[in-house]
Amino acid sequence: MLPRVNSAAIRRLNMVRVFHALRENPNCAQRDLSRLTGLDKATTSAIVAQMIEDGLVERSDAPRARRIGRPETALGIAPSAGLLVGARLEPGTIRIVSTTLAGTVVEQSQLPGSTDLATALRHLHEGIDAVVAASRLEGGAAPPPLRGIGIGIPALMDRAGRLVLAPNLGWRDTPIRPLLEEALGAPVHVDNDTKAAAMAERLFGACRGVEDFVYLTGHSGVGGGLFLGGRLYRGAQGFAGEIGHLTVVPGGRPCGCGKRGCLETYVSETSILAQAGERGRALPDLWAAAAAARDGDPVVRTLLEAAGSHLGVALSHMVNLMNPGLVVLGGNLSIVAEFVLPTLNAALDEHALGPLRRDLRLLVSPLGPDAVPMGGIALAMDGFLSVPGPIL
Amino acid sequence: MLPRVNSAAIRRLNMVRVFHALRENPNCAQRDLSRLTGLDKATTSAIVAQMIEDGLVERSDAPRARRIGRPETALGIAPSAGLLVGARLEPGTIRIVSTTLAGTVVEQSQLPGSTDLATALRHLHEGIDAVVAASRLEGGAAPPPLRGIGIGIPALMDRAGRLVLAPNLGWRDTPIRPLLEEALGAPVHVDNDTKAAAMAERLFGACRGVEDFVYLTGHSGVGGGLFLGGRLYRGAQGFAGEIGHLTVVPGGRPCGCGKRGCLETYVSETSILAQAGERGRALPDLWAAAAAARDGDPVVRTLLEAAGSHLGVALSHMVNLMNPGLVVLGGNLSIVAEFVLPTLNAALDEHALGPLRRDLRLLVSPLGPDAVPMGGIALAMDGFLSVPGPIL
Repeated sequence: MLPRVNSAAIRRLNMVRVFHALRENPNCAQRDLSRLTGLDKATTSAIVAQMIEDGLVERSDAPRARRIGRPETALGIAPSAGLLVGARLEPGTIRIVSTTLAGTVVEQSQLPGSTDLATALRHLHEGIDAVVAASRLEGGAAPPPLRGIGIGIPALMDRAGRLVLAPNLGWRDTPIRPLLEEALGAPVHVDNDTKAAAMAERLFGACRGVEDFVYLTGHSGVGGGLFLGGRLYRGAQGFAGEIGHLTVVPGGRPCGCGKRGCLETYVSETSILAQAGERGRALPDLWAAAAAARDGDPVVRTLLEAAGSHLGVALSHMVNLMNPGLVVLGGNLSIVAEFVLPTLNAALDEHALGPLRRDLRLLVSPLGPDAVPMGGIALAMDGFLSVPGPIL
Repeated sequence: MLPRVNSAAIRRLNMVRVFHALRENPNCAQRDLSRLTGLDKATTSAIVAQMIEDGLVERSDAPRARRIGRPETALGIAPSAGLLVGARLEPGTIRIVSTTLAGTVVEQSQLPGSTDLATALRHLHEGIDAVVAASRLEGGAAPPPLRGIGIGIPALMDRAGRLVLAPNLGWRDTPIRPLLEEALGAPVHVDNDTKAAAMAERLFGACRGVEDFVYLTGHSGVGGGLFLGGRLYRGAQGFAGEIGHLTVVPGGRPCGCGKRGCLETYVSETSILAQAGERGRALPDLWAAAAAARDGDPVVRTLLEAAGSHLGVALSHMVNLMNPGLVVLGGNLSIVAEFVLPTLNAALDEHALGPLRRDLRLLVSPLGPDAVPMGGIALAMDGFLSVPGPIL
């Protein structure tokens, strides 16, 4: 009923708190750490000493000027302590990014994706090897050691990291994490792409410090990442957040999941382009749809307005059920936000309860389509920080 | 980003853990407490010694036989340590229950409700005084001291305990907790009735040990209580769970909230009876509706089937978004469950994602309409246990 706590777990929690404070405040003075973490000075200083000994934190050479007293050196997560790799696996493309342990981007690359599992995994493997090899720091002969890999996939992933169903990749019941871990030789963390992106918004994006928010994204499907009470909420099986499969048109367009009239059959990039095609508008991507709408194309405008309206209805269900304080439109939805938001807002006004609607903030993601690979970084960072025992 | 922990908070968490283990396992032997709580023997025994000294726990006189070695006395929450009072405030009735600190019912009563705030609070005050005065334990001259009062109200309550909107009582923006605390002279905890009932299901009912469940109830309105990751989820403002206001029929029946076609305009007790009346069936309550359906009345059957179908659609939204493992039909919905469930299940089959639907369990609440007053007890118990400092 209540979490069990012991002193090792507390030390770990405090260390993670210091880690994030250093990550979010580059060149932090040790005296500021207590205030930033809420930990007392003795605890902070013991943790910092241990992290320096472990090679995780370094004191910078450049002394930091103080107004009064002797100058103070600044602290930071050591770039040499390790690399993290984040990846986004989509049917058409694989995107890979490497960062320092603190989340500063070092290298990026993009490769062709595949719906053939073996091909996709081979490309991912080769791509990660190449990105890691290229991730040399200034003056470094070899790249820092790889500490973890995080991968976002458009799939239902269960709590054990098993891929249950990926309608747009055509994969099901695949133990993807052990397959990857064996191939890649480093800890691998796999999660639903939208959940990963929501974690990125929380760690690096618009939702730093926000306890309750919903992150919405639309690529091949539409997904929601739920941060509730400061934690990514996964649900009983790990499938929470499937807003893309809320029925918005009973008996409507057929969906990859086997149902009809799901939100994502009207709102995902794939379905918006398909509907445009059915109406004689061949558009390669949502950037083209946004451009056509900006030029006043009534067919594309009507499609985007309908998408906004359907999304607003589904979102009103989410608002009434979960009372989030903030909704972030991310991924490719951010590309067409200006054409989607007016009808989306009107649907929220009509269908969400007054007091819940009134205080709801709606933001367009600053990370945009980059959120998923950075979500892989967030997964890898979270995994790295939650390993019991010494960090390095 | 992470909870701050200190040794006082840990001692409190461990004490609460021991409290619940003793509550759930009457006549528990001290040697079993370590296993039940996951705490080591030394910790358990220090906590028990403190709780005995505080008068919260007592050793029973009757020795408990052990197969091997000397007999062992049993431990339990002391009935003399205090009373808790739980209440349910509805427009028509006020129900009050008193229990021991362990949640064993001592007294109950029912009084007329009122939509006039002053009248309702006066009845509540008088009713609680009378129930407390009557709560004498075996052989006790005076009732044990009142340790806390919990009240469930059909209202949007914000996180500060302020009543924001109670459409069916006609109240809004009322600082109900301080009003009651001044009148009643004991710590008062007020919450939305459905959230309180969900807490009762978790502590005393069908959901003991279940981490992720949704509790649904329908009286004057329809509400949902969400337990997510082992915690009652409240949302950014405290309004989470308003399933009754999901639009299920765009432009449909007018709702007390000002919108149209809300779920509760088809599924609450009030609206089912109103719809029956519109069709020439004057029914006093849902028990009568269940009886008529059992007699084969086609009008009432059709109404209940439609209610089940609407509820199933709204529930499928909830399932797709939140992936609960268990849904509990509680309150007055449990009275008509047999007529509502077939269409509810069919709607779930049609609208919920396969993997999420497959593992979903659906239960009818064992607490039924008693869940709200027992929810008041759960609120009061939770409040009592979370006061910092010594317990008594």
